[in-house]
Amino acid sequence: MGKDDVNESGAPGGGEFAAKDYTDPPPAPLIDSAELGSWSLYRAVIAEFIATLLFLYITVATVIGYKHQTDANAAGASPDAACGGVGVLGIAWAFGGMIFVLVYCTAGISGGHINPAVTFGLFLARKVSLVRALLYIVAQCLGAICGVGLVKAFQSAYFVRYGGGANLLADGYSKGTGLGAEIIGTFVLVYTVFSATDPKRNARDSHVPVLAPLPIGFAVFMVHLATIPITGTGINPARSLGAAVIFNQNKPWDDQWIFWVGPLVGAAIAAFYHQYILRAGAIKALGSFRSNA
Amino acid sequence: MGKDDVNESGAPGGGEFAAKDYTDPPPAPLIDSAELGSWSLYRAVIAEFIATLLFLYITVATVIGYKHQTDANAAGASPDAACGGVGVLGIAWAFGGMIFVLVYCTAGISGGHINPAVTFGLFLARKVSLVRALLYIVAQCLGAICGVGLVKAFQSAYFVRYGGGANLLADGYSKGTGLGAEIIGTFVLVYTVFSATDPKRNARDSHVPVLAPLPIGFAVFMVHLATIPITGTGINPARSLGAAVIFNQNKPWDDQWIFWVGPLVGAAIAAFYHQYILRAGAIKALGSFRSNA
Amino acid sequence: MGKDDVNESGAPGGGEFAAKDYTDPPPAPLIDSAELGSWSLYRAVIAEFIATLLFLYITVATVIGYKHQTDANAAGASPDAACGGVGVLGIAWAFGGMIFVLVYCTAGISGGHINPAVTFGLFLARKVSLVRALLYIVAQCLGAICGVGLVKAFQSAYFVRYGGGANLLADGYSKGTGLGAEIIGTFVLVYTVFSATDPKRNARDSHVPVLAPLPIGFAVFMVHLATIPITGTGINPARSLGAAVIFNQNKPWDDQWIFWVGPLVGAAIAAFYHQYILRAGAIKALGSFRSNA
Amino acid sequence: MGKDDVNESGAPGGGEFAAKDYTDPPPAPLIDSAELGSWSLYRAVIAEFIATLLFLYITVATVIGYKHQTDANAAGASPDAACGGVGVLGIAWAFGGMIFVLVYCTAGISGGHINPAVTFGLFLARKVSLVRALLYIVAQCLGAICGVGLVKAFQSAYFVRYGGGANLLADGYSKGTGLGAEIIGTFVLVYTVFSATDPKRNARDSHVPVLAPLPIGFAVFMVHLATIPITGTGINPARSLGAAVIFNQNKPWDDQWIFWVGPLVGAAIAAFYHQYILRAGAIKALGSFRSNA
Repeated sequence: MGKDDVNESGAPGGGEFAAKDYTDPPPAPLIDSAELGSWSLYRAVIAEFIATLLFLYITVATVIGYKHQTDANAAGASPDAACGGVGVLGIAWAFGGMIFVLVYCTAGISGGHINPAVTFGLFLARKVSLVRALLYIVAQCLGAICGVGLVKAFQSAYFVRYGGGANLLADGYSKGTGLGAEIIGTFVLVYTVFSATDPKRNARDSHVPVLAPLPIGFAVFMVHLATIPITGTGINPARSLGAAVIFNQNKPWDDQWIFWVGPLVGAAIAAFYHQYILRAGAIKALGSFRSNA
Repeated sequence: MGKDDVNESGAPGGGEFAAKDYTDPPPAPLIDSAELGSWSLYRAVIAEFIATLLFLYITVATVIGYKHQTDANAAGASPDAACGGVGVLGIAWAFGGMIFVLVYCTAGISGGHINPAVTFGLFLARKVSLVRALLYIVAQCLGAICGVGLVKAFQSAYFVRYGGGANLLADGYSKGTGLGAEIIGTFVLVYTVFSATDPKRNARDSHVPVLAPLPIGFAVFMVHLATIPITGTGINPARSLGAAVIFNQNKPWDDQWIFWVGPLVGAAIAAFYHQYILRAGAIKALGSFRSNA
Repeated sequence: MGKDDVNESGAPGGGEFAAKDYTDPPPAPLIDSAELGSWSLYRAVIAEFIATLLFLYITVATVIGYKHQTDANAAGASPDAACGGVGVLGIAWAFGGMIFVLVYCTAGISGGHINPAVTFGLFLARKVSLVRALLYIVAQCLGAICGVGLVKAFQSAYFVRYGGGANLLADGYSKGTGLGAEIIGTFVLVYTVFSATDPKRNARDSHVPVLAPLPIGFAVFMVHLATIPITGTGINPARSLGAAVIFNQNKPWDDQWIFWVGPLVGAAIAAFYHQYILRAGAIKALGSFRSNA
Repeated sequence: MGKDDVNESGAPGGGEFAAKDYTDPPPAPLIDSAELGSWSLYRAVIAEFIATLLFLYITVATVIGYKHQTDANAAGASPDAACGGVGVLGIAWAFGGMIFVLVYCTAGISGGHINPAVTFGLFLARKVSLVRALLYIVAQCLGAICGVGLVKAFQSAYFVRYGGGANLLADGYSKGTGLGAEIIGTFVLVYTVFSATDPKRNARDSHVPVLAPLPIGFAVFMVHLATIPITGTGINPARSLGAAVIFNQNKPWDDQWIFWVGPLVGAAIAAFYHQYILRAGAIKALGSFRSNA
């Protein structure tokens, strides 16, 4: 309810910065050479690789196992077949719940991205360096491929038959709809990530970081409930790439661009919304422009 | 277990206020001219607009997608059709979970109302100014219309066929039952909001604000479980208006008044219950009356 | 991992109490006359009444609505009927989720019992006075009756047909099994309540009170998953009484004793386990006995 | 995002330890004779016994009750039968939710292991003594046997017919697949436990211990969603042993080794990953080796 004081909306003046009770970290450099010599960077890259591997292993195994259980031909016509699986609700929980667990586990090591769109959004906001962002994205994609590969190795009998967990546009939806659904879904996720990691809010609302991994996981859960019928829900280019590489059939490759363009655009809009609207950057920039002119 | 001390129940005396370990903020003025010149007000209005848009987009998309999946005519008579969707439980999660995520994200910017009934209840308790309340409600209604509009654009083939997520009274229930269900449901929600934002409790039970968005989201989830069979569950006039505007058929418009009168009455009762029963305001007022007489 | 130091297990000595970093509140008196003159007691009783009313209203409405939706005769033979409702899982969520919300809301006002078995357990541990315990239990029972009465008023067409949410022993289970299931289920709940409100743990593990309402709600959720097939799950005598009074048929009245004896015995065992095993009271008492002898 | 400073990655030097803002507890001895004389050890063993008993009772009762409800032959061919139970999703919730509740309740008493694989992983990391680890594992196994025994006593008519909750390899999966699924599943769980109890993170991210039981419970929930179709999901040797002892049929005994070897290997890998990769132990050891050489 309007916790932010009026000062911030004015043009920059002597008293303004004194009134701030938080510290904005300086923007991350594009290339930080000290970072490259530090074990903590490589450890973070390893943590992103392992976390994305576990994410895809658990979620795609849930998808394949569910489709196997509800397949009437495979299981016979027992009534149990129709409802025996975890359902779309269970699949949505698998994606959202794993993100909650993995963000909790890796937040202190790598920041807990586990998603190239999140890394891209935080890079645009200058919260990670370019080098770190690129290393993370490579690690996430390799982790996703390995995770889906594990599911294929374990479930060889069912993996291809049940679609390999690959993202593709459902029948009856246009490419524009799929792209729009991916943009909005990723916006919801990256907006939540920015809200959870805002240094201004951490200083004032000390409870913000306590819960942080939980709303991020729930955002993923919610977006899956809404967009599984449209695209199967990507909002994570590494997840879509990993499933496409291992499943390796035409349709997922044809639609693959949707699962990169959509999430990256959604993440960019969320970064813009947070930095220029919610943090009042636009007005500050305008005030700064005026006082310079 | 009776954490509040006895002092508060007596007539106002010299020692009473000294014993308070919290500060009640002064009542918000009806029109706060300083507020009108502040960017933080407009930013809060934008945040309410975006949050309500995302709320309606995710939840109505879940409803439409679920009904499409479980429609035997559309999907053929495969056993998968009957249980393939997320179910009423998934729909209830979508509403409750999105409120959790969005209250978490917007609490520090706008207070996280996302619902005209919540804004009305907090206005009655003089926690927001009249101007802010009106701007919020307009933003929430516009956001809801845009959110449902997005779902119609994405799901044009199914939107009208599956009811557009509109609230209406189910067959076999009287208007009085629908109104009663909306009043009690909104009471549960707004009572939880007051419990979560009580400055007295924050001072004493420091854990109250940490969890706050979670029980608010769960309250929405619970009310949906109970009242989806009766009215589809409004408890949020912006949500009901947005769906009615885009769906635009007779039945939702005829029942629309239920989804404004019910939530506003429920919110007013919750504000009264919190301010005059739980905060002992009634007794204080009585004591004050006596000592004046 | 053995956070408690060794001192506590010995006989009482000079150094022992100096090492304590927490304060045990003194045992509540049986009758506290100062309490009777305080508004905070009556406010707490009102809060227990309203909370139990809301608890029964939401949960029994969920049960009735679910049974109506899944009744093939009422809804026609559409495939939607079989899976349209929230399911047993949704019912378990309704009970557990409402307890989470209501404990969160009323913890600072009344302690958040909402259950005569919890009140009885805390009374045995001398955490509430006898007068307070009796007033709470009366308020809980009246609240439960009113809550189920509201559901009957709203759902008159379906209330009796679908069993009124009443607890009774399912076919094929003996009375001993039902009693055992109620004892263990209530033990799980009251053990969680004691763990969440232990002053020793609060001092050392500052996170304990932050989450407290959530594991209490989850305990109720879990017990419902396990015992709905056996007794429908009482573990709350007010809940069972309220449904029996409004439904008012023979079978629930015949089984009613199970839903009072079971929960009260389970709560007593949990109080004993917490006070004499986990808090080392047994050993302390023994040491005290020896040093006196 | 790289919260750890660069210092730690270098070879041990004078300034390094001064920069640490946390304290690593010393490794637990193999045999701690003072511990053996302390009531807190025996109390912890009792708490592990009771917690594992309650865990198996609630979860196996959920499994048996669910299978009974969805058995078309037992319940007649009503449509309600097909979907009346809690489903695989409800079973996964029962396992994950109980771990959340029980870790919350026992964390301050015994550390909240409730699983020999967790105890083994923490023993490898030298966080518990050998004696304590052995006593815990014995208590967990006895508790699991008693918990499943209670379910058999209560559900004698259905227990054997519905498989007694025993873990076994599903048809169509090789022993290697089952072993792999158990290894990865336990890795997810024990990795989460190490992340939640890391003293370094506790010092820097004060929110880590607040949520701790919740991601641990969710990790169990997620692993069940993914691996119920393969092995029924063990990831807890006490759980698998308890069900096998009471069910006592050939197939679970033949597969029993999978549910000991898999979890213990997975826990060992998680301990290695946390101690030598994430905590930079490998590099430190290397640096130490070099400076000694």
